[in-house]
Amino acid sequence: MHRKLIESFGIRVRQCREKRGWSQERLAEYSGLDRSYVGEIERGRVIASIVTVQKLAQALNIDLADLLTNCGPPSGPGRSN
Amino acid sequence: MHRKLIESFGIRVRQCREKRGWSQERLAEYSGLDRSYVGEIERGRVIASIVTVQKLAQALNIDLADLLTNCGPPSGPGRSN
Repeated sequence: MHRKLIESFGIRVRQCREKRGWSQERLAEYSGLDRSYVGEIERGRVIASIVTVQKLAQALNIDLADLLTNCGPPSGPGRSN
Repeated sequence: MHRKLIESFGIRVRQCREKRGWSQERLAEYSGLDRSYVGEIERGRVIASIVTVQKLAQALNIDLADLLTNCGPPSGPGRSN
C-alpha cells in the first residue's frame, strides 16, 4: 500500500521535472537536495519526508499537496529554464 | 520555513484527531503508529515521512493532501468513535 505511494510520488517528481525540461542536477540545485537523493526519490527507493516534499514543491513552484496528488501546471513565474 | 510546516502539520493532526473526539492512543491504534510518536508529531518535534502522513490520513479517513493543507471534514463512514 505504502509502496505505491512512494513509487507514485517518485514518478510525479520526475514528471514535474521533465515537464520543465530540467535535469536531476537542476532540480537538486533548486531544491537544495543532493542529486543522487533526487534520483533515489524518483526511483521510489527512499521515503521522502514532508520537508523534502516541501523543498521539491518550492523548487518546482507548485503546491506541496499538488506534488503529492498530481503534477500541477508547469511553474508560472518563479523558476524558469 | 520548514519549521513552520512541521509545526502546522502537527497542529493539523491534533485538530483532526480532536474533531473526532479521539485520544492520541486511539489515533495511534488506527494509524498503526506508536502513541508517543503521534504525540511527537503533534508537538512538531519530529518530521513525518509521506508514509506516516498516509497512515494518519487513512486513520482519519481524509485525503493525504488534505491532511497537509487543512483538516477536511470529520470522517464520513469509515472509522467512527
